[in-house]
Amino acid sequence: MVTRLSHLFLRTLREDPVDAEVASHKLLVRAGYIRRQAPGIFAWLPLGLRVKARIETIIREEMAAAGAQEVHFPALLPREPYEATNRWTEYGPNLFRLQDRRETDYLLAPTHEEPFTLLVKDLYSSYKDLPVTLYQIQDKYRDEARPRAGLLRGREFTMKDAYSFDVTDEGLAESYQAQRDAYERIFTRLGLEYVIVQADAGAMGGSRSEEFLHPTEVGEDTFVRSAGGYAANVEAYQTPASEALPIDGQPEPIVVDTPDSSTILGLIDELNTNQARTDRAWLASDTLKNVVLALTHQDGSRELVVVGMPGDREVDMKRAEVVFAPADVEPASESDFAKHPRLVRGYLGPWTPTGAVLGETSSSGIRYLLDPRVVEGTAWVTGANEHGKHVLSLIAGRDFTADGVADIAEVHEGDPAPDGSGPIEAARGMEIGHVFQLGRKYAEALGLQVLDENGKLVTVTMGSYGIGVTRIMAVLAETNHDDKGLTWPEQVAPFDVHVVATGKDAAVYTIAEELVSQLEGFGHDVLYDDRPKVSPGVKFGDAELLGVPRIVIVGRTAADGIVELWNRRTGEREQVAIADVVSRLSAAEASAN
Amino acid sequence: MVTRLSHLFLRTLREDPVDAEVASHKLLVRAGYIRRQAPGIFAWLPLGLRVKARIETIIREEMAAAGAQEVHFPALLPREPYEATNRWTEYGPNLFRLQDRRETDYLLAPTHEEPFTLLVKDLYSSYKDLPVTLYQIQDKYRDEARPRAGLLRGREFTMKDAYSFDVTDEGLAESYQAQRDAYERIFTRLGLEYVIVQADAGAMGGSRSEEFLHPTEVGEDTFVRSAGGYAANVEAYQTPASEALPIDGQPEPIVVDTPDSSTILGLIDELNTNQARTDRAWLASDTLKNVVLALTHQDGSRELVVVGMPGDREVDMKRAEVVFAPADVEPASESDFAKHPRLVRGYLGPWTPTGAVLGETSSSGIRYLLDPRVVEGTAWVTGANEHGKHVLSLIAGRDFTADGVADIAEVHEGDPAPDGSGPIEAARGMEIGHVFQLGRKYAEALGLQVLDENGKLVTVTMGSYGIGVTRIMAVLAETNHDDKGLTWPEQVAPFDVHVVATGKDAAVYTIAEELVSQLEGFGHDVLYDDRPKVSPGVKFGDAELLGVPRIVIVGRTAADGIVELWNRRTGEREQVAIADVVSRLSAAEASAN
Repeated sequence: MVTRLSHLFLRTLREDPVDAEVASHKLLVRAGYIRRQAPGIFAWLPLGLRVKARIETIIREEMAAAGAQEVHFPALLPREPYEATNRWTEYGPNLFRLQDRRETDYLLAPTHEEPFTLLVKDLYSSYKDLPVTLYQIQDKYRDEARPRAGLLRGREFTMKDAYSFDVTDEGLAESYQAQRDAYERIFTRLGLEYVIVQADAGAMGGSRSEEFLHPTEVGEDTFVRSAGGYAANVEAYQTPASEALPIDGQPEPIVVDTPDSSTILGLIDELNTNQARTDRAWLASDTLKNVVLALTHQDGSRELVVVGMPGDREVDMKRAEVVFAPADVEPASESDFAKHPRLVRGYLGPWTPTGAVLGETSSSGIRYLLDPRVVEGTAWVTGANEHGKHVLSLIAGRDFTADGVADIAEVHEGDPAPDGSGPIEAARGMEIGHVFQLGRKYAEALGLQVLDENGKLVTVTMGSYGIGVTRIMAVLAETNHDDKGLTWPEQVAPFDVHVVATGKDAAVYTIAEELVSQLEGFGHDVLYDDRPKVSPGVKFGDAELLGVPRIVIVGRTAADGIVELWNRRTGEREQVAIADVVSRLSAAEASAN
Repeated sequence: MVTRLSHLFLRTLREDPVDAEVASHKLLVRAGYIRRQAPGIFAWLPLGLRVKARIETIIREEMAAAGAQEVHFPALLPREPYEATNRWTEYGPNLFRLQDRRETDYLLAPTHEEPFTLLVKDLYSSYKDLPVTLYQIQDKYRDEARPRAGLLRGREFTMKDAYSFDVTDEGLAESYQAQRDAYERIFTRLGLEYVIVQADAGAMGGSRSEEFLHPTEVGEDTFVRSAGGYAANVEAYQTPASEALPIDGQPEPIVVDTPDSSTILGLIDELNTNQARTDRAWLASDTLKNVVLALTHQDGSRELVVVGMPGDREVDMKRAEVVFAPADVEPASESDFAKHPRLVRGYLGPWTPTGAVLGETSSSGIRYLLDPRVVEGTAWVTGANEHGKHVLSLIAGRDFTADGVADIAEVHEGDPAPDGSGPIEAARGMEIGHVFQLGRKYAEALGLQVLDENGKLVTVTMGSYGIGVTRIMAVLAETNHDDKGLTWPEQVAPFDVHVVATGKDAAVYTIAEELVSQLEGFGHDVLYDDRPKVSPGVKFGDAELLGVPRIVIVGRTAADGIVELWNRRTGEREQVAIADVVSRLSAAEASAN
């Protein structure tokens, strides 16, 4: 196929769009791949549609190789199934909701676990029908509070979402692995660097869950990894419990006056000034900070919890959300403190000289949870539950106990990987794929059961697997560009070759036409810049902006049988005999694929 | 590619779905092509998706051949552009409307004139950029009051919609013709019978408009055609004006008592009883019926009009809607009559013995319009505007005049085609395509102008062209089935060949596997029924239901090198040497394409 630039629906733009912050957004708009329709909602122009189609082809091929079968669901779906799984409510304002003319509730689906589950329930009834993995490539909707970065976080976006259905846990593990392997092949074929990180399953529920992150500074996710191969989403990082220490021989607690020390920094200052020790200075990590959080449970009830953690850490609210899900969590409010005068702000602790106020033995009715580092035998400076007073040498397991563990503190670089593979470092990434073992949550909620080998009804176990197609395109643009424009890899480029004819000499265009026909004959998808009145500079600028990886310049030397091959990715330019162009380009393409 | 029935996500059903009335709906559900999600909203199963993809490929090829370029718009669009063209309001309850989290209004687009217009406005500015024709294949939404017949009238459906942009009227005519020609090629390739009928442009506005109707009893549209080649939508049929007659020598009007004759039937009875003539009987067509209609204009004002037409015709409200558009039209209400006591129900006419009450000379303030058959010199029996009285021999042009023509009477079989090509007959059809010359309506409303050759801003003229992709699939199923199931034509069948291995003999399956590999090697898309435990009867039944046109049965005789070729469309069965199967099928396919 040949596409002529004189005919192509395209206007390249000199200026970055005003709302664009990241390179992929700027370049995809400037090069005429996409065009904004509303916040986070884009139209696809001919070039954009071509790149998207190539990405989808790779995904379809690998889904077929993994034995997944393509189906297609509507975006507009009735409320009931999402009500049954509680997601109608859980999605909150992220869900686009609407009513039809009969005032029946509908939604624009953000993801399709429910209808896939119901479809399998509808058609299948026996273990013999399983396993089955179904997928679709489909436009999804999420009413993001802050749509940003072009295609990186849109409100309408294309996803490949797959769902597996198995009778046994082992079956699920296999189906999961098949999708996971397919994802590795897809990202490898796309030339996209990725890290597989352990992920919290979040609102999806379920057991095993991994994210495919593309490491990039424009990424929205922070993840941690060790040199030894550990990688996890920050929400999924599990702090290893410290080792317990002997309680025997530890000094008794001492209550000290610490006026104006309601912050950890103030307390450390005060201690180092008035409780100075000769052996070492007081550090924030010597203190036990007690944070009051308010949980809102699904039944609407509000519960306060206090979490104790080393004073050099803050609460990571995202990690807290995971730990306390499905309850919503927020810092306790003024009115919460007002209702609980025993929670002395700035001087809160698990202990007073007259006994425990928090934890298992307390009568406050408020759960007290501890960071995994606060283990038996560790000594802490903490609040004495009296304004202007702290207590030193308070020993965990001796002077106070807790109702449980809450691993919600910030993760720091240098913290140990939980698998012992060394200290972790933090990096930023963009989620490009996600694989979940959902388990039986959806099948239970929607009644998906099949008869097993013994004729007994068993609940099906499911997996859910997503790849963001439009996001991948943005990440590819993010990874493949320079200051002149896009530099697509062959396998997703909108065209195989971009032929640029320059000058006003009609003979040049005749030669270019011939070359274009030849390339077409050899199966190349060709973009041909045949615009006679456009200057070479503008044509080269457009070629750089559009980013087709192989460019052939047909100019003055064409009459002597010579053209220029220009590799857009390496910048290499080379004089080549016209007769050799087809074989050179075909060889280049074969080696790239 | 080979798809194994043992693996395919499919459950064929013995029973018709309870809500299905037409064959395509029953069979597409029973054969596992589609599955209902909500009224008029379907999921696409693997087989359905394959047929749909093949239809889309044919459409894409012909769009490319017509020079149209593919783009893709979101379904979710902001209100403003549709407000600017008034369609936000005009669509009424057929539009799915919703709000995002900021309470901004959005819609699910039923058609995309507005965003295409804005996109061209956004990127193009000169006559040099035009003409351009853009299209998309995209899922559309209409909140139909009565979604029915499966894919024939859905609330979510796939359309190919194209839009052309030209500077001149001649350019528009060419762009229109290119799409019209492409549509003819598409329907021909699909093997779909079609009639091109003149159509009313309806809510779309504009000048020339034609519908592609597939003649079928399950069609929702009535159209009329003559043996001489005229064809039109009933709404677009234009009644030829009758010839004027001489007024001289016509008898004077006579007012007669006609008690209890407020209906045309009653009047005719009365006339034939008490005003009997020797030359002939009174007919309904001798009477002039005057119908009072209430128009609601876009500014909300209400206007009464009276339309006079021969008494053997009723008003066709759909034709009336077209004539009075954009006003809404309905029969006058009790309260309308109450407000206008001079409109004597059942005895209404344009004339009284003391002068005209309706028409140009009236002072009622109510417009009086006439059917094209009521021309100068024609004589009528009509109401005398007094209860129980009619007037005979009222001569149009002498005794009454009108404010204009309103061609809103029912069309009858036998009426003349307006082009003189003979009497018309009525037929039913299903709209499968529609081409419109929109003209400058949308460009004006949305400010799409370009600079012409003289540097002057001119408004662009547009065309709009739609094909219902999912509806075409239903029509194809409607046209290609028998009482056993579907009988797809080769070009849209989900597979090229369906190989059925029968019995329990492992050797048969080995031979079938070999044949399947060979067919795959020759580029055939093969469905292989490899289910060892399913009886031949069930396999044949499934093959008939699924409707792949070429079936190969590998059974007992396979050991002797003989299989059976079964043509699903003709029912022909033939014993063939295995060695000949590939060449026989490839030849069959070549001749079908």
